[in-house]
Amino acid sequence: MEKTIGMLVGPLFEDLEFWSVAMRLREEGYRTLVIGGKAGETYTAKSGGLKATAEIDAGDVTAKSLHGLAVPGGFAPDTMRRNSEMIRLIREMDEQKKIVGFICHAGWMAASAKILTGRRCTGSLGIKDDLENAGGLWVDLPAFQEGNLVWGRVVADIPAYQKVLISALGAQ
Amino acid sequence: MEKTIGMLVGPLFEDLEFWSVAMRLREEGYRTLVIGGKAGETYTAKSGGLKATAEIDAGDVTAKSLHGLAVPGGFAPDTMRRNSEMIRLIREMDEQKKIVGFICHAGWMAASAKILTGRRCTGSLGIKDDLENAGGLWVDLPAFQEGNLVWGRVVADIPAYQKVLISALGAQ
Repeated sequence: MEKTIGMLVGPLFEDLEFWSVAMRLREEGYRTLVIGGKAGETYTAKSGGLKATAEIDAGDVTAKSLHGLAVPGGFAPDTMRRNSEMIRLIREMDEQKKIVGFICHAGWMAASAKILTGRRCTGSLGIKDDLENAGGLWVDLPAFQEGNLVWGRVVADIPAYQKVLISALGAQ
Repeated sequence: MEKTIGMLVGPLFEDLEFWSVAMRLREEGYRTLVIGGKAGETYTAKSGGLKATAEIDAGDVTAKSLHGLAVPGGFAPDTMRRNSEMIRLIREMDEQKKIVGFICHAGWMAASAKILTGRRCTGSLGIKDDLENAGGLWVDLPAFQEGNLVWGRVVADIPAYQKVLISALGAQ
């Protein structure tokens, strides 16, 4: 049976942190499930060019149905963190020790899910203070795995992030 | 020593056929070299959002210096095929039996390089007649390898295309 990886999406998602990762997951044989605030809603990427359409509401997704979850950066997390069902899904994934990937500004979602205490994390320098204030231990590395969480720093680190994410998902 | 994969680029390149492939090649440990009409020139993708900047003129690149070459689609090939140095580079790569990847509208470059006779090929339906008129044998498959050439059909086939391309480059 095909394993499903959820991909959160919202307005101003970072183009490649969403789409390059989606293509990579599909290459690996995973089904991607695009999870938004509202099924059928289409969001425009930060560049203003690419788009992505939600296949399902976050409220209709359980951690049990997913093998993993990938959260893109850009400014989408600023909107997505206000969605209590998205935050609930991240907490549920974490409680079940399932792989969740965060890159760039995606760490804001981990801060709002209150899962950072004492754990290593990274992302865009713009959110370093927020992750540390949420109890995270900031490290300046392109990408790494910390327990069931996978971290990527910025767009240029997508290659390293994809490598760690694919490896973590494969090992689970 | 790091192996280099050339990536042709021009105006209106297809966002993900360029950038998702670039990220994937880097993930695999290759250095990507962005080859344009003019070093330092920045091109906007078909979506109007993403951009890519040429690191070097096509005229300054020899097949000998590359391990492989990837050609994106979008409408960039309509411009790029007018650049005799890009066409020369593709012919040189093919003569040296090096891997060249073509996806979507990229096949126009293979038509202009006159390397299609009797070989299987694919791409956007929009260029099917052009590839057949150039002597190619059109097949309707997401992605495949034909000798030293790798073919991908459309954007949705990027995952399959990346898989064949990475495998072909690794075997060479």
